[in-house]
Amino acid sequence: MNQSDILQLIEQKRYVELKRELTDIKPVDIAEIMDPIDPNITLLIFRMLPKDIAVEVFAHFSNIQQREIINAITDKELIYILDELFFDDMIDMIEEMPANVVNKILQHSTNEERKLINQFLKYPADSAGSLMTIEYVELNQNMTVKESLDHIKEIGLNKETVYTCYVINKNRVLEGIVSLRVLVTSEEDEIIKDLMVDVEDIVFVNTHDDQETVANIFIKYGFLALPVVDKERRLTGIITVDDIMDVMEQEGTEDFQKMAAMAPTDDAYLSTSVFKLAKNRIPWLLILMIGAAFTGGIITRFEDVLSSMVILTAFIPMLMDTGGNSGSQSSTLIIRGIAIGEVTLADKWKVLWKEFRVSIIVGVVLGFVNFLKNIYFDKVGLDVAITVSITLVSTVIMSKMAGGILPLIAKKLKLDPAIMAGPLITTLVDSFALIIYFSIASMFLGL
Amino acid sequence: MNQSDILQLIEQKRYVELKRELTDIKPVDIAEIMDPIDPNITLLIFRMLPKDIAVEVFAHFSNIQQREIINAITDKELIYILDELFFDDMIDMIEEMPANVVNKILQHSTNEERKLINQFLKYPADSAGSLMTIEYVELNQNMTVKESLDHIKEIGLNKETVYTCYVINKNRVLEGIVSLRVLVTSEEDEIIKDLMVDVEDIVFVNTHDDQETVANIFIKYGFLALPVVDKERRLTGIITVDDIMDVMEQEGTEDFQKMAAMAPTDDAYLSTSVFKLAKNRIPWLLILMIGAAFTGGIITRFEDVLSSMVILTAFIPMLMDTGGNSGSQSSTLIIRGIAIGEVTLADKWKVLWKEFRVSIIVGVVLGFVNFLKNIYFDKVGLDVAITVSITLVSTVIMSKMAGGILPLIAKKLKLDPAIMAGPLITTLVDSFALIIYFSIASMFLGL
Repeated sequence: MNQSDILQLIEQKRYVELKRELTDIKPVDIAEIMDPIDPNITLLIFRMLPKDIAVEVFAHFSNIQQREIINAITDKELIYILDELFFDDMIDMIEEMPANVVNKILQHSTNEERKLINQFLKYPADSAGSLMTIEYVELNQNMTVKESLDHIKEIGLNKETVYTCYVINKNRVLEGIVSLRVLVTSEEDEIIKDLMVDVEDIVFVNTHDDQETVANIFIKYGFLALPVVDKERRLTGIITVDDIMDVMEQEGTEDFQKMAAMAPTDDAYLSTSVFKLAKNRIPWLLILMIGAAFTGGIITRFEDVLSSMVILTAFIPMLMDTGGNSGSQSSTLIIRGIAIGEVTLADKWKVLWKEFRVSIIVGVVLGFVNFLKNIYFDKVGLDVAITVSITLVSTVIMSKMAGGILPLIAKKLKLDPAIMAGPLITTLVDSFALIIYFSIASMFLGL
Repeated sequence: MNQSDILQLIEQKRYVELKRELTDIKPVDIAEIMDPIDPNITLLIFRMLPKDIAVEVFAHFSNIQQREIINAITDKELIYILDELFFDDMIDMIEEMPANVVNKILQHSTNEERKLINQFLKYPADSAGSLMTIEYVELNQNMTVKESLDHIKEIGLNKETVYTCYVINKNRVLEGIVSLRVLVTSEEDEIIKDLMVDVEDIVFVNTHDDQETVANIFIKYGFLALPVVDKERRLTGIITVDDIMDVMEQEGTEDFQKMAAMAPTDDAYLSTSVFKLAKNRIPWLLILMIGAAFTGGIITRFEDVLSSMVILTAFIPMLMDTGGNSGSQSSTLIIRGIAIGEVTLADKWKVLWKEFRVSIIVGVVLGFVNFLKNIYFDKVGLDVAITVSITLVSTVIMSKMAGGILPLIAKKLKLDPAIMAGPLITTLVDSFALIIYFSIASMFLGL
C-alpha cells in the first residue's frame, strides 16, 4: 500500500476498502504515506481511522500536517486528541505551533493541564526536561508486589512505559526504582521496599541536563528509561529510550551539518524549502570566503617569489588540500570523541602528543611520496622538490596539531567543538601552509 | 572513586575497603575505571568482585583486557564466565579474540554450544545475525496468561529481555509476539493466541539484513526488541534496543571517519595506537594528494595567463575553498539523508533540482559580496572582479550539483555514499573551478 494506491481508492470512492487497508498499516507508516498529500485528503483519511489509531498517526505527523489538522477539525475532535496524546508528544507539537494554534489548544485544556504545559514549555530546548513524559507508574515503598501489579493492571495501558516503576514518597521525592521484571519474578507478598533499587544506586538526571549527556548515559548503561528530578530530587518525569534514539539521530545529523559549515536544522532535507536551505548555508560560506582572502593576501605579498618561479604556483592546490584534509581527519576524530564522551578536556596533552606522533608518520610518508613524484614525474629541480616536500611535512604536522587541539579549545571556551571541523581548519591552515611554503622557497631558492 | 583511589587502596593492601567500594559501583563503571591499568592489577580486582558482577564487568571490558583476563584465569573461572555471559556478548568477544584464545573457549564449551557459536560466527559482521542474542522468552499459542507469567517467573532472570515474548510453533516458526505489558494487564485465564500480535502485523528482520537497516527500524517504530528469523521464518534470535544504540553510535562514528577521508574503525581514539591511526589516515591522503596534482597541472597549463596577470593567483585559494565548502555542504546533507533512510535513489531528480535552486541563491549572494569586496576592498579592475565573481557563481552551482548527486551515484554503484564527502568533492571540484577561472580570464581579459 503506497500513496498512489490510497489516492486511487479515494478517487474511486472505495472508502470501505480503504478503511480496511488502513487498519493493516502501522500508524507511523500511515503518517509517512500521508506526508506530502493534499490537506483535504489528509483530513478525509484521518477521519476514516479508528479514533485511537488516528491519535497515534497524528503524533507521527510533521508539524505542518499537525497544524493543518488542528485548524480543520472540530473542537470535540481536538479535545479527544489532546486527551489521548502522550504528554511529551503534545509538548513537542505545541513547541512548533504558531501562537493561534497554541491558543486553541490551551483553550481546550483544563486549568491543571495548562499549568503543566506552561511549566514544560519553559524547559530549555535540548534539555532533559524538554524530552520527558509524565506518564509513568508511581509506587510507594510499602506496597506489596500484588498491590503493585494490580495497580499496573489498572493504569498500565495509559502509561508510556510500565517496565520501570518509580518509588516516591508523599513529597514526590524519588526513593528508588523497581523493574517489572523484578515484580513478575517475585512473590506476591514481598514488599517494594525490599525489592527496589535504592535511589543511592540509581542513575538519574536533572531537568536542565543537556540531552547529549542524557543520551550518553542511556548508551553506557543500556537503560530503557531514566528518571528526571528537580533540585529537591522530586520526580518530575521520565525519559524513555525511544525518544533517546531520536535524540541520537538528531544530534548526529546536527553535528554533520555543523561540521560541514551549515546552520543545523531538525528538518528533513526533502521537506526543507530551498530558501531555508540557502539561508542555512550562506553565513558560514561568507565567513570562510572572507577568511580565504587572507590566504590570497599572502600570495599577493609573495608575488615576487611567485613571478620569478611560476612553477611554485602549481603545487599550491596540493599543499592546501593536503593540509586541509590532514587537519579535518584529526579534528573529526576529536569532535566525535567529545560528542560521545570518549575524549574530555583532561585529555588535551594526550591528544596533542598522539597527534604529534601520528602527524610525523603521516607527514614523512606523504613527503617522501611527493618527493619521488616531484623528481621522477613532475621532473622539477631538486630545490623545488625539497621546498615542496618540506612544506608538505610541516603543513601536515601543523594541521594535525591544530585539528587535535582546536575542538578542545572550543569546548573549553564553551563553544561547540563541531565548528572546529574541516572547513574552518582548512581556512586557518591554508595561510600558514603558504607562509611556510614561500619562506622556505625564498631561503632555499635564494629569491 | 577513580583509578588513582583504587590503585592507592591496592598499594596500601586495604583490600576489604576496596571490595566494599567496588560493590557500590556499576559494572560498566568498574570496567571503565580499570581500562588502562596493569594486567596484574586488573586480574586482582577482577577476582575480588562477586562472581556475577565480575561477569558483567568482563562483558564491558575492551578486547585487549578480555584477552588478558582469559589468558590469566583458571579453566574453572573461564567456564563460569562463558556460562554466565549473554550469548551476544560472548559472540562479540570471540569475534575479536586471536585463534589460541578462541580455541581455549571452544574447548570449554559443550558440543551444542560449539555448534551455536560456529553458526553465529558465520553471520556477516554488521548483519542482524551478528547482533542478535538467543536469550529470549518463548511462549506457545495455547498457553494461558497465568502459565506464561509462571514461565517467565521461572526463567526470566536469565533472559536478556522479558518485556517482549515470542510465540512460536513446534517447528520454531514465529507466530506472533506478546508484550509483558499485555500479559500483566490481562486476566489470568486468557489465552496467548487471543492476546498476541499476529506475525502478519509485526515487523521482523532476516539474519542477513544490514545493521543500519535494523537501526532505522528501531528508530522509526520505537521498539525495545525485534525478532530475527531465517528464510523459513523460524525464530533464530532477537535484537535488543541497547545493542542498537551501540550500533547507532558506531555507524555515526564510522560515517564521520569515512567522510573525513579515513579508514573507519570501532576503536576509541585514545586507546588506538599511533601506528594504527597513521595507517587509517595515509591511504586517502595519498590518493587525494595525487588527485590534487591534476589541479596543479591545470595551473601549469595556464601558466601564460597567470604570469601575465599574477593578481589572478591571489583568488585561487578563495575559489578552491569556497567550491569545496559548497560541495561539502550538499554532499553531507545527502550522505546523512541516505544513512538515516530519508533520501533514496528515487529522489535523485528532486535532489538535483533542489540543489540547483539552492546553489543559484547561494552563488549569487556570494558572487555579489565578492564583487563588492573586489572593487572596494581589493581595488582590482572591473574585468578581474567580473572574472572572479562569475567563476565563483559557476563553481558554487557546479559544486552543489556534484555534492548532491555523487553520493546517490555511489549508492547506485553499491559503493559507500560516505566516500563522496568533502575531501573527494573538493579535489574533484578544484580542477573544474580553475578551468572555468582561466577560461573566463582568457576570454574576458583578452589573454
